[in-house]
Amino acid sequence: MVNFMNEDFLLKTESAARLYHEHAEKMPVIDYHCHINPEDIARDKRYTSISDVWLGGDHYKWRLIRANGTPESGVTGALGEDPFLLFQSFAAALPRAIGNPVYHWTYLELKRYFGIEKQLTPETAREIFDACNKKLAEPGMSARGLIDQSNVRLICTTDDPTDNLEYHRQIAGDKTCKVKVLPAFRPDKAVNIRNPEFAGYIAKLAEVSGVEITDFASLCRALDSRIDFFNAMGCRASDHGLESCIYATASQAELDAILSAALGGEAVSPQRAEQYSAAVLLHLGRRYHELGWVMQIHFGCKRNNNSRMFRQLGADTGFDSMNGSGEPYKLSDFLDALDCTGQLPRMVLYSLNPADSEIIATIAGCFMADAGCPGKIQLGAAWWFNDTKSGMEKQLLDYANGTLLGNFVGMLTDSRSFLSYTRHEYFRRILCNFLGKLVEDGEYAADFDTLGRIVEDICYNNTARFFGFGI
Amino acid sequence: MVNFMNEDFLLKTESAARLYHEHAEKMPVIDYHCHINPEDIARDKRYTSISDVWLGGDHYKWRLIRANGTPESGVTGALGEDPFLLFQSFAAALPRAIGNPVYHWTYLELKRYFGIEKQLTPETAREIFDACNKKLAEPGMSARGLIDQSNVRLICTTDDPTDNLEYHRQIAGDKTCKVKVLPAFRPDKAVNIRNPEFAGYIAKLAEVSGVEITDFASLCRALDSRIDFFNAMGCRASDHGLESCIYATASQAELDAILSAALGGEAVSPQRAEQYSAAVLLHLGRRYHELGWVMQIHFGCKRNNNSRMFRQLGADTGFDSMNGSGEPYKLSDFLDALDCTGQLPRMVLYSLNPADSEIIATIAGCFMADAGCPGKIQLGAAWWFNDTKSGMEKQLLDYANGTLLGNFVGMLTDSRSFLSYTRHEYFRRILCNFLGKLVEDGEYAADFDTLGRIVEDICYNNTARFFGFGI
Amino acid sequence: MVNFMNEDFLLKTESAARLYHEHAEKMPVIDYHCHINPEDIARDKRYTSISDVWLGGDHYKWRLIRANGTPESGVTGALGEDPFLLFQSFAAALPRAIGNPVYHWTYLELKRYFGIEKQLTPETAREIFDACNKKLAEPGMSARGLIDQSNVRLICTTDDPTDNLEYHRQIAGDKTCKVKVLPAFRPDKAVNIRNPEFAGYIAKLAEVSGVEITDFASLCRALDSRIDFFNAMGCRASDHGLESCIYATASQAELDAILSAALGGEAVSPQRAEQYSAAVLLHLGRRYHELGWVMQIHFGCKRNNNSRMFRQLGADTGFDSMNGSGEPYKLSDFLDALDCTGQLPRMVLYSLNPADSEIIATIAGCFMADAGCPGKIQLGAAWWFNDTKSGMEKQLLDYANGTLLGNFVGMLTDSRSFLSYTRHEYFRRILCNFLGKLVEDGEYAADFDTLGRIVEDICYNNTARFFGFGI
Repeated sequence: MVNFMNEDFLLKTESAARLYHEHAEKMPVIDYHCHINPEDIARDKRYTSISDVWLGGDHYKWRLIRANGTPESGVTGALGEDPFLLFQSFAAALPRAIGNPVYHWTYLELKRYFGIEKQLTPETAREIFDACNKKLAEPGMSARGLIDQSNVRLICTTDDPTDNLEYHRQIAGDKTCKVKVLPAFRPDKAVNIRNPEFAGYIAKLAEVSGVEITDFASLCRALDSRIDFFNAMGCRASDHGLESCIYATASQAELDAILSAALGGEAVSPQRAEQYSAAVLLHLGRRYHELGWVMQIHFGCKRNNNSRMFRQLGADTGFDSMNGSGEPYKLSDFLDALDCTGQLPRMVLYSLNPADSEIIATIAGCFMADAGCPGKIQLGAAWWFNDTKSGMEKQLLDYANGTLLGNFVGMLTDSRSFLSYTRHEYFRRILCNFLGKLVEDGEYAADFDTLGRIVEDICYNNTARFFGFGI
Repeated sequence: MVNFMNEDFLLKTESAARLYHEHAEKMPVIDYHCHINPEDIARDKRYTSISDVWLGGDHYKWRLIRANGTPESGVTGALGEDPFLLFQSFAAALPRAIGNPVYHWTYLELKRYFGIEKQLTPETAREIFDACNKKLAEPGMSARGLIDQSNVRLICTTDDPTDNLEYHRQIAGDKTCKVKVLPAFRPDKAVNIRNPEFAGYIAKLAEVSGVEITDFASLCRALDSRIDFFNAMGCRASDHGLESCIYATASQAELDAILSAALGGEAVSPQRAEQYSAAVLLHLGRRYHELGWVMQIHFGCKRNNNSRMFRQLGADTGFDSMNGSGEPYKLSDFLDALDCTGQLPRMVLYSLNPADSEIIATIAGCFMADAGCPGKIQLGAAWWFNDTKSGMEKQLLDYANGTLLGNFVGMLTDSRSFLSYTRHEYFRRILCNFLGKLVEDGEYAADFDTLGRIVEDICYNNTARFFGFGI
Repeated sequence: MVNFMNEDFLLKTESAARLYHEHAEKMPVIDYHCHINPEDIARDKRYTSISDVWLGGDHYKWRLIRANGTPESGVTGALGEDPFLLFQSFAAALPRAIGNPVYHWTYLELKRYFGIEKQLTPETAREIFDACNKKLAEPGMSARGLIDQSNVRLICTTDDPTDNLEYHRQIAGDKTCKVKVLPAFRPDKAVNIRNPEFAGYIAKLAEVSGVEITDFASLCRALDSRIDFFNAMGCRASDHGLESCIYATASQAELDAILSAALGGEAVSPQRAEQYSAAVLLHLGRRYHELGWVMQIHFGCKRNNNSRMFRQLGADTGFDSMNGSGEPYKLSDFLDALDCTGQLPRMVLYSLNPADSEIIATIAGCFMADAGCPGKIQLGAAWWFNDTKSGMEKQLLDYANGTLLGNFVGMLTDSRSFLSYTRHEYFRRILCNFLGKLVEDGEYAADFDTLGRIVEDICYNNTARFFGFGI
């Protein structure tokens, strides 16, 4: 029996341990997609409570607490009100989370950042709560301190096109800040034409960009202007969230009519919305290609399923789910429309429905000819509900079965918390275990020079090269 | 090499064996969903032939025999006609069923109930047939005897709303019957408006309930009346079979029109049928919530695929299949419609298409806020074609990845046979192996007090609490 | 640690090794579905370069090379132009293909046919290239030589109905050719009515068959005439490629109108195309049943996704992908339409989308009654993108869970290369590992007589019997 969370956690063979300890463990981190607030880095935020830094914005944990039958008053209701109550609620749920990734993340984070190895239970909750809070008062436990101890070299935040990137500017000008923080361009609000706030958003975009938006062409100019601004601020990547894969064609006149209707407050049918959204994405994809940006697309989330709680708490509070497998073949048509004019950007494609993963991998393989770089179209790391041990193993398997795993750009946190960098450790252990098993089973040559290089590439080098981060 | 079917069958680690033998094995059984005939318990039925009790209604086994090329005359054609021919047909198929759950079930049942460990082959068939029949003549091999030796405390049958529950009444009044037998409410015939027998069924429902059914409101009153009757008889759960996830809205007038058309013998379009069915299910869900019943839904079966054999043998004879993955997001809309008025009952959701399992798990996680109980919306145990070792492991994994596995309500037989209680043993071994592996791999603390409690909860305590059986 | 690719490659238990070495390894090969050119056998083609025989038509390898960032000039651009450049491109990609089946296939093929065990890398490429080319000059390295050393008894090619089967005739009449080579009937061009070349193809079919095609009935007569010709040439199987499962009904008049429109150059809607295609397939299925042929259907490929490369290179050059899961329940309706008149032929059903595999297995189980042979409807071997170690394990698992694995007809190469027969070895190792693990885990009796028979049946005997090859 392996000791719980020992140094060879998840490393089931000697080859796996060797690859992890001699290679993966030493590589710095590039967190190329996350949702942390750049203001917290600019101000080097400090935390007074483990509940604040650890449970304050983490809807993964909230879901577990709710699933344990705890009323909302002991979950988000306790936020800021009663930090220990929230911590206690989580401590009650945790032992029931056997097999859940949050169980692993919890102990990795308590151990790495707080030096705590004790089990978190209702009985130990007070002691651990106090110890964590004491630790948080020490130097090195600020936002930047947590980043530095995690060996993070570069972070991409996720930013709206209308953002002024003021905190990115401050960080870039701050000599004391060691980590590089770049914006990423996420124009979902300009794509989601059926959103009730669409017209208001377009007005804001016009104002910020200084471009009067009267038709589809001027909308594209406004977006281009913001892309140029982001690019000047060092941006190397965009990101898009879509309920499912989309593709449709439309004439310029149709697009103008759809946009005009939406700006006039008319309802837009799903079919016309798909035409519009596809056209915006095609325009953006071509611009990204021109600038050498990476286009990330996150497919297949159904959001805000619980209308009662949405009214109470708003979005991103733990009430989203996987969508059904949509029409993944549309992804192929979308890529083809960009490729046929030689304007296909490098891409990372993430699917929330794991059943689409193999399909996406095979579609990606159709658009690598004359790519100009290894692994041009990437099957993205296991995302959200798939960000589990088995989910990551499936993603690695699907990637390896479909194409060259050695060219994979690896992991990201996708997180809102500065304590989540251990998810890179979690991924690297699973990766090394996956590769080590192939070696031990006689399925890959025991050539540890090549294996070590593959590990280091997936952990760091591929990412740096693929995004062109210049580090 | 492990000996075939030894006492540590399926328990691959010491931790697994410890959890099974110290905890799981000792817990009584609650079989909260099955298809046995309550009359057999009321009359304490005895069996003269192993073919009668074991092959008489088991379409799992019939499918295997047919797949071996045996003509129907040696399958259902031999029923009652030539018990040994049927047994011999099965014995010929069994050795070819390598990796099939029926292979495991067969040897568990032969060993536990008949003390037979010999391989069943065409050569041994006669000897085993005779030995089983001899054993069946012993005391303790009646319907109640089989239940008692299986340590079953409570059984929920599956009953039509028009049923008079006479056998449940007899059993409840019979002091010599140790097991508690409760009805479960399965109103499929009132939901499936496109069924040719719908109008006739509604007439029967009206008669039995004493409510004249003239519109949607009176239909609901008739169903409510039967729910009250079932509730008075101790019912704690309903069950629903749906080809796929459904949701649609409709006005009362539309519902009246649809019902009126159907009762008048008109064809109902799939769209209107979905409106009607969703409305009935919403009404029922609210009533279940009021009474504290559990609502079970079985999604995704395509029935009676073989029209030639359907004409020959009728339904439930081994000619059903998985349906494609439907529109699982509709499940979310359905739950939301119940939740937004605070009328969402506790639920167990079973999907026949395993690709929907992860989606359902993530949808369930959206409807746990202010639940009032742990694990309010359950991903149901692996069902039917998924009721295999790998299928159960996937269900446990999906449950664990998605929420708190410690709150799972565990296994049921879903069977028509009194020899199927070993499926609880089969599940418990797989469960303990799953949990034991996590411990041995250092993925859960080796805290056997907590682990033992989790095992006992999943095997029994959660079920008793969740359904409110009062045992 | 197991040595890379040693004699127990993929055989992780003693039972697995025993089953492989005592049974699987010794059985001859029936390659009942492939895409090799019969002309190469008739002329006993010889090869001057490893790039020619190994990389010349293998779009699996081309995809990997492209995914490594190699420009097309170093892939298909090097074909015939610069054999070593192409080989070098592949050698650069291979070490990155960790976990990919091509990695395994490569070393199996280099070892079995060329005696090479050295790692193929950019550094060793020249040496291995030269060694392979030298070996190719030896006797026994012609098309027939490769077949003979692979212990192949029978090959089914894939042939258009209009083919004159001249090379099959030559081979059959050539006493020096040891392998039996039969045609297989693949009438996709007569089914795909939306293909721009449909009308031209029908004209050719009319000419070759000598049947004037004026309506649906005469089209069927023309196809029947070709079926008779193929049957006279020893054909025992057909094959069909479909984007997804289809089924629809149509009157004879509708079918005549659809066909007439298509022949007149009109566009045919997807709905009418489905009616037409389903009707042709039903007609063919009935004829196959009459002649005792096996009907193979390959579902779920989306072809020619990359229009730029399609214009450049044409079809079958590495730009196809999995399709989404279509409407697999239509498969059930299709089988039922054949079965209800007692005209359902034996079938092998292959799905490119692995999510449909379990569904197809359960549908197959509905059409085995009165089959007249074991395993009448087969879940086909893992196909194309699923032809990986994990994909084959899933197919075996799905087959075993769903029905009698002992009746499976086993593996095929589906290949265009005479070096691919090692894929039978690859499959047999995975099969024996799968079965051996069941035995070692105590899930199947350690009865090696029965196990050995099952292995030999799946490797050879079932195939010979199922197709009626008379060998």
